Amino acid sequence: MSYTVAVAGASGYAGGEILRLLAAHPELTVTTITGHSSAGADIVEVQPHLRSYAGMRLVDTTAENLAGHDVVFVALPHGASGAVTAGLGDDVLVVDCGADHRLVDPGEWDRYYGGEYFGAWSYGVPELPRTGTSSRQLLEGARRIAAPGCNASTVALSVAPGVLAGVVEAEDVVSVLAVGPSGAGKSAKVHLLASEMLGSASAYAVGGTHRHIPEILQSLRAAGAGPDATISFTPVLVPMSRGILATSTARIAPGVGAAEVRAAWERAYADEPFVQLLPEGQFPRTADVLGANTCLLGLAVDEAAGRVTVVAAVDNLVKGTAGAAIQSANIALGLPETTGLSTNGVAP
Amino acid sequence: MSYTVAVAGASGYAGGEILRLLAAHPELTVTTITGHSSAGADIVEVQPHLRSYAGMRLVDTTAENLAGHDVVFVALPHGASGAVTAGLGDDVLVVDCGADHRLVDPGEWDRYYGGEYFGAWSYGVPELPRTGTSSRQLLEGARRIAAPGCNASTVALSVAPGVLAGVVEAEDVVSVLAVGPSGAGKSAKVHLLASEMLGSASAYAVGGTHRHIPEILQSLRAAGAGPDATISFTPVLVPMSRGILATSTARIAPGVGAAEVRAAWERAYADEPFVQLLPEGQFPRTADVLGANTCLLGLAVDEAAGRVTVVAAVDNLVKGTAGAAIQSANIALGLPETTGLSTNGVAP
Amino acid sequence: MSYTVAVAGASGYAGGEILRLLAAHPELTVTTITGHSSAGADIVEVQPHLRSYAGMRLVDTTAENLAGHDVVFVALPHGASGAVTAGLGDDVLVVDCGADHRLVDPGEWDRYYGGEYFGAWSYGVPELPRTGTSSRQLLEGARRIAAPGCNASTVALSVAPGVLAGVVEAEDVVSVLAVGPSGAGKSAKVHLLASEMLGSASAYAVGGTHRHIPEILQSLRAAGAGPDATISFTPVLVPMSRGILATSTARIAPGVGAAEVRAAWERAYADEPFVQLLPEGQFPRTADVLGANTCLLGLAVDEAAGRVTVVAAVDNLVKGTAGAAIQSANIALGLPETTGLSTNGVAP
Amino acid sequence: MSYTVAVAGASGYAGGEILRLLAAHPELTVTTITGHSSAGADIVEVQPHLRSYAGMRLVDTTAENLAGHDVVFVALPHGASGAVTAGLGDDVLVVDCGADHRLVDPGEWDRYYGGEYFGAWSYGVPELPRTGTSSRQLLEGARRIAAPGCNASTVALSVAPGVLAGVVEAEDVVSVLAVGPSGAGKSAKVHLLASEMLGSASAYAVGGTHRHIPEILQSLRAAGAGPDATISFTPVLVPMSRGILATSTARIAPGVGAAEVRAAWERAYADEPFVQLLPEGQFPRTADVLGANTCLLGLAVDEAAGRVTVVAAVDNLVKGTAGAAIQSANIALGLPETTGLSTNGVAP
Repeated sequence: MSYTVAVAGASGYAGGEILRLLAAHPELTVTTITGHSSAGADIVEVQPHLRSYAGMRLVDTTAENLAGHDVVFVALPHGASGAVTAGLGDDVLVVDCGADHRLVDPGEWDRYYGGEYFGAWSYGVPELPRTGTSSRQLLEGARRIAAPGCNASTVALSVAPGVLAGVVEAEDVVSVLAVGPSGAGKSAKVHLLASEMLGSASAYAVGGTHRHIPEILQSLRAAGAGPDATISFTPVLVPMSRGILATSTARIAPGVGAAEVRAAWERAYADEPFVQLLPEGQFPRTADVLGANTCLLGLAVDEAAGRVTVVAAVDNLVKGTAGAAIQSANIALGLPETTGLSTNGVAP
Repeated sequence: MSYTVAVAGASGYAGGEILRLLAAHPELTVTTITGHSSAGADIVEVQPHLRSYAGMRLVDTTAENLAGHDVVFVALPHGASGAVTAGLGDDVLVVDCGADHRLVDPGEWDRYYGGEYFGAWSYGVPELPRTGTSSRQLLEGARRIAAPGCNASTVALSVAPGVLAGVVEAEDVVSVLAVGPSGAGKSAKVHLLASEMLGSASAYAVGGTHRHIPEILQSLRAAGAGPDATISFTPVLVPMSRGILATSTARIAPGVGAAEVRAAWERAYADEPFVQLLPEGQFPRTADVLGANTCLLGLAVDEAAGRVTVVAAVDNLVKGTAGAAIQSANIALGLPETTGLSTNGVAP
Repeated sequence: MSYTVAVAGASGYAGGEILRLLAAHPELTVTTITGHSSAGADIVEVQPHLRSYAGMRLVDTTAENLAGHDVVFVALPHGASGAVTAGLGDDVLVVDCGADHRLVDPGEWDRYYGGEYFGAWSYGVPELPRTGTSSRQLLEGARRIAAPGCNASTVALSVAPGVLAGVVEAEDVVSVLAVGPSGAGKSAKVHLLASEMLGSASAYAVGGTHRHIPEILQSLRAAGAGPDATISFTPVLVPMSRGILATSTARIAPGVGAAEVRAAWERAYADEPFVQLLPEGQFPRTADVLGANTCLLGLAVDEAAGRVTVVAAVDNLVKGTAGAAIQSANIALGLPETTGLSTNGVAP
Repeated sequence: MSYTVAVAGASGYAGGEILRLLAAHPELTVTTITGHSSAGADIVEVQPHLRSYAGMRLVDTTAENLAGHDVVFVALPHGASGAVTAGLGDDVLVVDCGADHRLVDPGEWDRYYGGEYFGAWSYGVPELPRTGTSSRQLLEGARRIAAPGCNASTVALSVAPGVLAGVVEAEDVVSVLAVGPSGAGKSAKVHLLASEMLGSASAYAVGGTHRHIPEILQSLRAAGAGPDATISFTPVLVPMSRGILATSTARIAPGVGAAEVRAAWERAYADEPFVQLLPEGQFPRTADVLGANTCLLGLAVDEAAGRVTVVAAVDNLVKGTAGAAIQSANIALGLPETTGLSTNGVAP
């Protein structure tokens, strides 16, 4: 059984990565790709690395062109999804890689994004620990899925196990992320030029303004955090094209020992194919997950500081976006969850 | 008036940087350079970028070779300084770039470094806010100076103004640093290979084990922090040869407003030539300080998280090490503090 | 039908890449992996990116451990293959990724490598144009295959079509290659440190001393070049972990027009899945082939200079080594040539 | 004696580098800086690394604003210099970093650039070997100077000594350059994004179309090359912000021996402070010249190929542009040539 697939926004980084991964997917067959200024072009003119798609041409991103497929992956700028997916039938599986359908609270949408609010869809992080129904179960049979923000899911996966187990406090989480520029998309801005970024690190959205903050707190609350949960969140651009290395720390709950802390993460991800806690003393590198749908975690308890530090490595375009989208689609369609997804990074 | 200078360990990264900076220093004249395996070589064979020194040959790092100079800069591995500097006269200015003379508490030396303890020297961060006598005053006329740990001084400069002013708490500081590999020195280790590091970010010394932690806490206590001060400190190796981008956060003290927080940092560095707070909304890049003796700071108050975030950019080999050493030497010798030091980074 | 596979030297870069690619190969199943100092370790301790192999342990690289498999991939230092593969049966397919079996002329082996000469095996570049029997045919049914040198095959693929067609001269070829450090292997040397390479480009083996030169000339002679063929060959290390961007130029034969030149390359690779000539005016980037078994070529005729310039992009570890090895093994075993190999690069 | 200086185009990369270097120049004092969209801004808003200029504001790039200075450095896009410098007095020293005044032949200007031709000025590469009057002498007392193209001067310095000495042929020179993106300026283009360039190498202007080609041939002819001189010239973008590593080869003239070849370069640069031939067997890295006004050369004779290979390392923004401009200005003004210029690179 094979499903037909349309990819909206195939000329961008997220759209291109969906295509790259789907080329190795035995059950999903890309039949339509759309773009904006690139409509009419052969895909290899705008994505020269996607040789297996040579000859396939981009069409305009319209509701009409997206109709008639079993699955539609949407990789458009925030706010653009609603207009082209609103008319798709309930039986069509739509996976949106933008932010439009991630936030449950319209007020937070308004505060961090603004514009029309289109409602929350099933959240595409199957491994995310939560109270009650599991994240994975919420994806089974779903037909509307919101792929996560790459930073948001990386931090949530890093912290939620401890929150769910009650071994850490969700108040006063601090996360600093070394991130590559591909998360900012393929738009020509001076500060994203190679000349500006090579040999340089810089922070942005400092001081609580990043749009992924409400998404993280929403995930932590789903894992049992109370309304007082807070996060100090700072992304740091570093000179690697892909990858997130998130360092997150949370205060250890009073009276909880180091072994108990570690056990919470071990338990949460013991059977997960794509989210893995490394053995004590080991910490991941982003190179280890390049191109792979893997989130690798290393954990250390700092008793002097009273905090646990979790280091997570993710490829922002794979487990952070396109891989999460496909993994979630696999679950929704009833396919084996790992279909078409690799756990091996391209290193060195 | 010109001083004669010996540089011990001139074949390494810190030693090489001392030479590079001294080439532009009108009052300090390098007359002796020492090395270990490189003794006998022309300096440009081991430091091919230092063309102005071509023809000068390295001699062995011995007490004898270091004797007879007005100033001795020591850039040797930790633990090696004592043996070669012990016999130098009290009138000789010795600036050690290793860790040997930074820690005041022999117990912390023992816990984090081990081996014989040689005592603390004047700490080479003139701008570091402290109660009582200023850091700068402590360097005036000094003849034994400990240049700081690059990460330690960067974090201390980031946090101490708020501690001294009482606007933040020194308990539960969190710092995550994006750092280049040159801080690890010129030793051939697999994990520092370009193949391993290019395109990759990775954390090390996670969970409170880094040797710069006691040095930071010592600086915070000098700025008025109580014995309960703690820091969660995580360095992240990123693919740039030089540079530290330190993101530090501290909880804002109860009842303190955003303007009051910012004012503490403004006050601390208002007249400093080398440590500068950027205007509100601006944050530094490590490229801006490459090769310069500058520490640039950006600050944002995150009221939701109850924390202030300070982002600091430093060239680990300049303001983090060699520049700090020369700046401190200038003070000790009674020269204008900025002599021979540039505030302009090599960008892009 | 599935074949059992041993990989000798699985802890290195080439060996690791063979494992990464074989994880997606439906007919080849890795059952044994060997190492030297890493023997006894779980593979993910030394190759932390190869999560799908977690739990598999390295054994010593001995003839005994390599015996009993259908296919043996050898990724050992030059000179080490003979001792461990000599005793393997004629029915076992052995693919050597070292240089030991590439050169047909014992004198050239002696001049460029030295030590015992073990004889030439079938050369693992199926697309390489040659007179007489095709390179591909020479691999059909072969049981001893020499995977190519990464630089050598890239340059040979760049130039041989014109030599075979007689449209360029093989005398006075000039090639300059931008190469990443992973081709130098996972050995800790100071000049390969990230600190030394980040932000820097440097040439090595300048002036005709590189070991891939005789291998290139051997390939050009197989394509019809006379004994006067020469190549000026200079590799330039640049700060990217993987990839070769080879710029090769050859003098256009007297009286040959631009269209005729281009036609030679078009003809040579018209039906090749892995070697492709881009349309006029387009030139490849190494990012386009990262992780892929693709050699992309761009070609321009410079009438003023009387030369054709061919720019080739290859992932040194894939099409340059491990991918070439697997592609050649597919042919030798009678499998579809593209089995388990991707043409899509991991970009951006 | 101090000269007042205006820098036109101070918001770009070349203009910024002129400012950075002039900050260390004891005789040239910047009093006016101009920009286009940045007019009105404080320089550190657009060049945050130039801390020593903080408080200086950009004014519009007009003839009026440039008038009244002793020296005017122009760092504008090609074609923009004429309009704003035409009215400056003959006693004003004008140094143009654009291409407008480099080419002697109006036909070549027309073919490679187009638009109005403003005539050639004294060429700002003092060390360039030439027949007759030396390049340096042509700059003495000059009041109109054309700073060189960075690639052009690097290649010309690499090849001209052999041409002048008659030991190599100027017909069939081949040069391939690994270059950083800063040479392309601070304009936001997708192919110059960090996401596109990190981990990737790519060629451009392949096949004889680069605008520096006529400039190189003009320099070779000045060194004695005949009208048949040709160059195959290919720049390769690599992921480092600055730097050119040029690999140039020329055929050795019949009957000339290796020692004679080497001697030509030794002779040409024996007394030069900024252009140096490294000892036999040594080759430069771009890191060695980062930020320095140095061109380092390594040379090897390849007798098998009948070619000499010269590897040159230059910082495109310093010796390639801004440093060459200042060095030439020093000569023109009668100052010591090395005033304000460093030979030491910022490495590692």
